Amino acid sequence: MRVDVVHNVLKLNDALAQQIRADLRGRGIFCPNLISSPGSGKTTLLERTLEHFRGTWGQAVIVGDLATSRDAERLAEYAQTVQINTDGGCHLDAAMVANAMPHLDLDGVDVLYIENVGNLVCPVGYDLGHDAKVALISVTEGEDKVAKYPRLWREADVVLLTKADLLQYVPFDVARFYEDLRALNGTVPVLEVSSMTGQGMDAWFEWLTARRESPNAQEPAA
Amino acid sequence: MRVDVVHNVLKLNDALAQQIRADLRGRGIFCPNLISSPGSGKTTLLERTLEHFRGTWGQAVIVGDLATSRDAERLAEYAQTVQINTDGGCHLDAAMVANAMPHLDLDGVDVLYIENVGNLVCPVGYDLGHDAKVALISVTEGEDKVAKYPRLWREADVVLLTKADLLQYVPFDVARFYEDLRALNGTVPVLEVSSMTGQGMDAWFEWLTARRESPNAQEPAA
Repeated sequence: MRVDVVHNVLKLNDALAQQIRADLRGRGIFCPNLISSPGSGKTTLLERTLEHFRGTWGQAVIVGDLATSRDAERLAEYAQTVQINTDGGCHLDAAMVANAMPHLDLDGVDVLYIENVGNLVCPVGYDLGHDAKVALISVTEGEDKVAKYPRLWREADVVLLTKADLLQYVPFDVARFYEDLRALNGTVPVLEVSSMTGQGMDAWFEWLTARRESPNAQEPAA
Repeated sequence: MRVDVVHNVLKLNDALAQQIRADLRGRGIFCPNLISSPGSGKTTLLERTLEHFRGTWGQAVIVGDLATSRDAERLAEYAQTVQINTDGGCHLDAAMVANAMPHLDLDGVDVLYIENVGNLVCPVGYDLGHDAKVALISVTEGEDKVAKYPRLWREADVVLLTKADLLQYVPFDVARFYEDLRALNGTVPVLEVSSMTGQGMDAWFEWLTARRESPNAQEPAA
């Protein structure tokens, strides 16, 4: 019984996500969906990204959190931003995104970033109408989070290994990380980055630029 | 409709959790439930804790993950351990704990630790029959995780600020952390610890010892 209800909810979500995707593609807007544990560095990465592409692209952000508007306050320094408060909910869904979109002026926007609720499990299953899943894992979390939370890495369009500047201070096994990741996903690009030192950020900006130019190259996993 | 289903699920969960709690208390077993983001250091804290109390207490562990038995393999070095694989599920529930318990020999056990799935949202709402909620946040996650994920800190019986040895390398605002935490929970004990250097671990061992001696002092939040 419960399974049926959840299936219906997911079906409705996917139908709405397809409408969002068609709408955004019709407007020529590229939409990455950033997913990670709490504290992997999604917001700081977005700050540096918005700053880098300011003047090049029109940019907007939808950011989800259980409570507070802290992330939106940080990101609104760089681009128009809408905060979704899920009020305890553990992920964004397509209806939340659809409700947030009218609060943005999408004319002239080239990239709409979605920063999901910090959670390595629940956001993975919800299509938001995005073009790509951007998966972050920070070196401080430990390399075992790949094998222990497999679905995100399987479905990711790019993996960012964040806080790479802290690698020298933590027991993160880089070889094991790549081994476990490749066992789940043989082809996903992996970028080692630090929003603090700037390490690897050019490769991330290049990935975004290339992917924005051909968002249909690869159909995103749901 | 969906709300009703979830309410029934939670009701069933709570009834089973009460049975587990009564069973464990009847056996004189203290049961802490460790909750945090992925990678906050639950498993490493448990390794040091099991090692410290070996020979003093009988100890056992139930550990939840989406996939792999890696945590159980680490913890089985120190005490009997059962791994629950949730197969994608984002939290442990009372039924999973009830199913795991017969795989442990609970005769002579004084403390049964439950290490929940790494997730700052979903595990908070599920009573597992535990005596105390142990909430971890690592300094590498950022102090804003308190205000952004409020429920866990409100309901915690103790808060461990982990990876304190990394404080010098990360932009964690300690004053803001305490301010936000106190706004949610005026009384919860906060312990700054590092499983790597041993900093603060004595205070954690003392908290566990004191709380085990009077588990009924404070009824746990569901």
